[in-house]
Amino acid sequence: MSHNTFGHLFRVTTFGESHGPAIGCVVDGCPPQIPLTAEDIQHDLDRRRPGQSRFTTQRQEPDAVKILSGVLAHPETGAQVTTGTPIGLLIENTDQRSKDYSDIKDKFRPGHADYTYDAKYGLRDYRGGGRSSARETAMRVAAGAIARKILPGITVRGALVQMGPHRIDRGKWNWDEVSKNPFFCPDKDKAAFFENYLDGIRKSGSSIGAVIEVVAEGVPAGWGAPIYGKLDADLAAAMMSINAVKGVEIGDGFAAAELSGEENADEMRMGNQGVTFLSNHAGGILGGISTGQPVVVRFAVKPTSSILSPRRTVDRKGGETEILTKGRHDPCVGIRAVPVGEAMMACVLADHFLRHRAQVGG
Amino acid sequence: MSHNTFGHLFRVTTFGESHGPAIGCVVDGCPPQIPLTAEDIQHDLDRRRPGQSRFTTQRQEPDAVKILSGVLAHPETGAQVTTGTPIGLLIENTDQRSKDYSDIKDKFRPGHADYTYDAKYGLRDYRGGGRSSARETAMRVAAGAIARKILPGITVRGALVQMGPHRIDRGKWNWDEVSKNPFFCPDKDKAAFFENYLDGIRKSGSSIGAVIEVVAEGVPAGWGAPIYGKLDADLAAAMMSINAVKGVEIGDGFAAAELSGEENADEMRMGNQGVTFLSNHAGGILGGISTGQPVVVRFAVKPTSSILSPRRTVDRKGGETEILTKGRHDPCVGIRAVPVGEAMMACVLADHFLRHRAQVGG
Amino acid sequence: MSHNTFGHLFRVTTFGESHGPAIGCVVDGCPPQIPLTAEDIQHDLDRRRPGQSRFTTQRQEPDAVKILSGVLAHPETGAQVTTGTPIGLLIENTDQRSKDYSDIKDKFRPGHADYTYDAKYGLRDYRGGGRSSARETAMRVAAGAIARKILPGITVRGALVQMGPHRIDRGKWNWDEVSKNPFFCPDKDKAAFFENYLDGIRKSGSSIGAVIEVVAEGVPAGWGAPIYGKLDADLAAAMMSINAVKGVEIGDGFAAAELSGEENADEMRMGNQGVTFLSNHAGGILGGISTGQPVVVRFAVKPTSSILSPRRTVDRKGGETEILTKGRHDPCVGIRAVPVGEAMMACVLADHFLRHRAQVGG
Amino acid sequence: MSHNTFGHLFRVTTFGESHGPAIGCVVDGCPPQIPLTAEDIQHDLDRRRPGQSRFTTQRQEPDAVKILSGVLAHPETGAQVTTGTPIGLLIENTDQRSKDYSDIKDKFRPGHADYTYDAKYGLRDYRGGGRSSARETAMRVAAGAIARKILPGITVRGALVQMGPHRIDRGKWNWDEVSKNPFFCPDKDKAAFFENYLDGIRKSGSSIGAVIEVVAEGVPAGWGAPIYGKLDADLAAAMMSINAVKGVEIGDGFAAAELSGEENADEMRMGNQGVTFLSNHAGGILGGISTGQPVVVRFAVKPTSSILSPRRTVDRKGGETEILTKGRHDPCVGIRAVPVGEAMMACVLADHFLRHRAQVGG
Repeated sequence: MSHNTFGHLFRVTTFGESHGPAIGCVVDGCPPQIPLTAEDIQHDLDRRRPGQSRFTTQRQEPDAVKILSGVLAHPETGAQVTTGTPIGLLIENTDQRSKDYSDIKDKFRPGHADYTYDAKYGLRDYRGGGRSSARETAMRVAAGAIARKILPGITVRGALVQMGPHRIDRGKWNWDEVSKNPFFCPDKDKAAFFENYLDGIRKSGSSIGAVIEVVAEGVPAGWGAPIYGKLDADLAAAMMSINAVKGVEIGDGFAAAELSGEENADEMRMGNQGVTFLSNHAGGILGGISTGQPVVVRFAVKPTSSILSPRRTVDRKGGETEILTKGRHDPCVGIRAVPVGEAMMACVLADHFLRHRAQVGG
Repeated sequence: MSHNTFGHLFRVTTFGESHGPAIGCVVDGCPPQIPLTAEDIQHDLDRRRPGQSRFTTQRQEPDAVKILSGVLAHPETGAQVTTGTPIGLLIENTDQRSKDYSDIKDKFRPGHADYTYDAKYGLRDYRGGGRSSARETAMRVAAGAIARKILPGITVRGALVQMGPHRIDRGKWNWDEVSKNPFFCPDKDKAAFFENYLDGIRKSGSSIGAVIEVVAEGVPAGWGAPIYGKLDADLAAAMMSINAVKGVEIGDGFAAAELSGEENADEMRMGNQGVTFLSNHAGGILGGISTGQPVVVRFAVKPTSSILSPRRTVDRKGGETEILTKGRHDPCVGIRAVPVGEAMMACVLADHFLRHRAQVGG
Repeated sequence: MSHNTFGHLFRVTTFGESHGPAIGCVVDGCPPQIPLTAEDIQHDLDRRRPGQSRFTTQRQEPDAVKILSGVLAHPETGAQVTTGTPIGLLIENTDQRSKDYSDIKDKFRPGHADYTYDAKYGLRDYRGGGRSSARETAMRVAAGAIARKILPGITVRGALVQMGPHRIDRGKWNWDEVSKNPFFCPDKDKAAFFENYLDGIRKSGSSIGAVIEVVAEGVPAGWGAPIYGKLDADLAAAMMSINAVKGVEIGDGFAAAELSGEENADEMRMGNQGVTFLSNHAGGILGGISTGQPVVVRFAVKPTSSILSPRRTVDRKGGETEILTKGRHDPCVGIRAVPVGEAMMACVLADHFLRHRAQVGG
Repeated sequence: MSHNTFGHLFRVTTFGESHGPAIGCVVDGCPPQIPLTAEDIQHDLDRRRPGQSRFTTQRQEPDAVKILSGVLAHPETGAQVTTGTPIGLLIENTDQRSKDYSDIKDKFRPGHADYTYDAKYGLRDYRGGGRSSARETAMRVAAGAIARKILPGITVRGALVQMGPHRIDRGKWNWDEVSKNPFFCPDKDKAAFFENYLDGIRKSGSSIGAVIEVVAEGVPAGWGAPIYGKLDADLAAAMMSINAVKGVEIGDGFAAAELSGEENADEMRMGNQGVTFLSNHAGGILGGISTGQPVVVRFAVKPTSSILSPRRTVDRKGGETEILTKGRHDPCVGIRAVPVGEAMMACVLADHFLRHRAQVGG
């Protein structure tokens, strides 16, 4: 939608820079009478929070979220619920350390949005990446926590499935493992491998890319819309809007290009509860509308551009120079993209739930 | 945006089913005084038109577009130009042959949108895929032709870069070859190979997927917007909204997951005309905003789901059955996706050109 | 919304000029399985059609509407119903007489949009007012006919309540009279008066303004939304967007400025079917949300600007000149605004019905 | 737009309840490099702030606004300017006194949104009107202050022109008087009259309606858009969305219904700086597009519904009861609507300035 608003009916508008006084968001269009407390949101935020292992930036922020509006003690039950009016959320920035960034004020960091923001606006908030900082994704996670609350019966889970060239073994996929390692990795053995692998990258001051997979189970058949309101089109935009993402796939994704029609099309049979599919190459979406199978999205995250090796660049005055980015950075920014991807999936589904209900009822 | 509208300021709304009386679209927000004739649009439509080789569906449609509104002879020059009011376009359907489809009226074709449309709406236009038919993409191409006219100095070109497992040799990329073979393939040798390869698939009644790359050159630095209005997020939605597309990449895309920070970030130097980059892993977009380098998008197209082998499926009554799809089909629907992908790129860029001009001027 | 699109979920996009080949619209977001035929729409169009009495323009147009998409014979009942996909509508212009307008090609008619379109776009379609012609309102009426179909149990009716300084006697209001006179006037005696009154104006080549009232009965309590999505705000925009409208009121409207708090606030009691109000100063809307009482809107229509007296004006070259507008015109354009106002009310209510269902269900 | 968002390109999203911890808004789409400080915004807020005379509610709030994002010291000048990213604004609620409202928790106040919010959402924030409180308008004024900054050369001023049945004498209109009396009244004599008049109403615990006029000077010809994006349609929605507004007029408004075509259409001549008009019945807008004359909007504000006389009503359980609203209220809520109306005018103009620049450039 607009620059800083996402969604049509479940609408999320975020604001705030990495090193300003606060970041925040407004969630508009939420149905009324949904139980919601700050703790509900905090739980998801804590999963994204940096500084929880040596594999994410050591920036220390409690990321304590406040609900500023849109909730009330229910007149009968007393439980705090949504009122149907916009939910304002705020997280104060407490660990700003603006000094860390003063040396990059006039230089454009390669791979970052420094040059492009400056080219567009004639200036940029250079403090910690300003608006382009991954810090903004905290508000996505907060909004996603609300989205989950209006999607009862739907489970949205994400996992890291590739780091650098190393893919997980899908035969070893175990959702329970995801919370047991610092990588959100569902393959226990590969998680053990990643520990050493990423330590090496971290110690060398380098970084590496990753691939994340997000799966939504329990989505009924029929959500989505024709042509430009396709569920997969909205998921593609949602995931591509996450910092550092360079590719998005639904179901088989790019591998579908190598398949024949016989291999690709998922056959149907009747099951106990209606239509079932014999495979899920489609990733749960056909013609932009959900099939009732799990909705499967993958996205590629490029390596963190902040590295300790000097890189050639230019400055705001047009001079050629070099830069190396000191400070606290994620050696694999893809790790923390897992809860962010889940949040975006939840927001897209919540939006389509409302859009479907609008047109078709039920 | 809405179900059948694409874009924010350069807005395209399409309507029409494969076998109804006509398909059409409304292009709203076009700047005034842009020279525009039906011939300008027809030129692009003819590139997408089926029946031009044995490798696309033999449906024969002249696809003759009429401009119904929004143009006028310029009071001084006499040339037909846009007036700033909405441009209505119409293509009558002339080769409908509804009888071809009567046997699939009650069966859901695997890989198609039959089941999902029915699940959503309780019925579907079964004639030739109805609204989910690739025929709708003709209007995308028509809109894209208008979009190109408001992007002077920008070249948008697409090419087929993979068919099944067979990738082109990028060292042999020659844009001039694209118009010389029926595959929009920039690698002359691979085009020759595809001829035999696809003939085999066609004759066996099967189909195959493909990957398309679209490149926009001449896009100035600064187009796009932060966070949810990112140029790459809009491109991802645009490409994913094309029929049969299952994946979208910007620049290095999924390959970026395998790169280190040193490899991935494009270094900058000063050139004769400002900042230049020493590589383009980013595909011309950083932080959602164009860098001034070519904007590079790839998307994967699944194989045509209409094949001659019988497939297991169910019908509207819940009975198990089989189906095979006779009739006129593309053995590789990815081929005709090339001009469609170009059109979507042009529409996204036109929209962002206007959005940029709104906020920043110039 | 956008320039030529109205509504959020029930979305109407119109195109076409007075003297181009056709006018049309796309209605997107309509629920599926709503019975709909061209005759349903034609019925409403015929009420707006000019040339039905000597009091409206003598332009003769059958205004025959075609449905180009979005409908299908229901698979079980055979009745033509909506499919949930966009409904394309087209009316060909048959009585164009472009020559009538050639003398105003370069002159700006006072009170018309000639000067402002030219100031904005650098040119204008001078043929019959082009895009700013009241002819566009035919598509509003067509869309309104569809909107009515998804509002079962809701009655939307309009009436002319004032012409020039002459107001109807509200004690004589009889809805049955509205269809019995050429003014849509609910006061039989005043209608008889208007006949002579308007004849005098017509014969003198002059014109006169009017006030229209539109009432929707059966709207349940709860439609609308807080703050910027208010039902009355959308109604105000809808009515003000009709050609020649200069004022909009809800309920008591401007008269409310003269009331005390005791007089204005509608008291509540319990009735057989829930809350009832003892008066309806609010016009059925409080806080932007419907109360369950009739929704009452009035709007003022200025006199037709095309008159036979010469008026001072300027031309495109900056020369001072005079103009008098020959041709076929409505002496009171407010008359034909009655079905247009009804249509806009129906469209706004249909949109809010879907928006309400999205957020709250039911 | 959406429930709590206003504008298309200059977009304002507000949140917050009267008695929650804070109210706030996000202003998105603002051009970069616009000088902006909290003081700029505070100046306008202070004009709307209650408790400044005995004629407005005695609620005491400093209404101190904080800018949370979207501004930066300009790298060259050091002046604080916008960055082009969303501007987050926050005002903490300090004078909440929730106890005042506990007796109305279960009763619906006539004339208020109590019943309709409850009918829609199944509950309502009863504390001080919650979301429907006039307190929300503080954020409109804040956003309007930003809008003014991007409209150089345009003056937006408002005035109270009627209170109850008492209209000002337009011959005595003096803009300088507006800031000299507590009514924003441009007629010095009438202001003196209002002092006694409103004192009487205040002391009796009653309230009275008003009419406000807002005038924008310096708007160039050409802003606005055809059909549904009309400048007057957006102004009508903007003004009607203000709490307690029941009617909106442009130019002559409802009086235009009484005019003949000769009287109404504004004739044109050539002036030193292009086209001039000999009158301004149109209120500066023709065909939805500005003429270059002053844009003139009037709106009617109903009397405050909170009065000291007991009124019949019902409660949440369906019981019949009475209510009288104690506490601190405005005897004429129209007074404080003056700066709010100015703000809405400024926001609409800022939005249309950007929309015009998008389509037409310049």
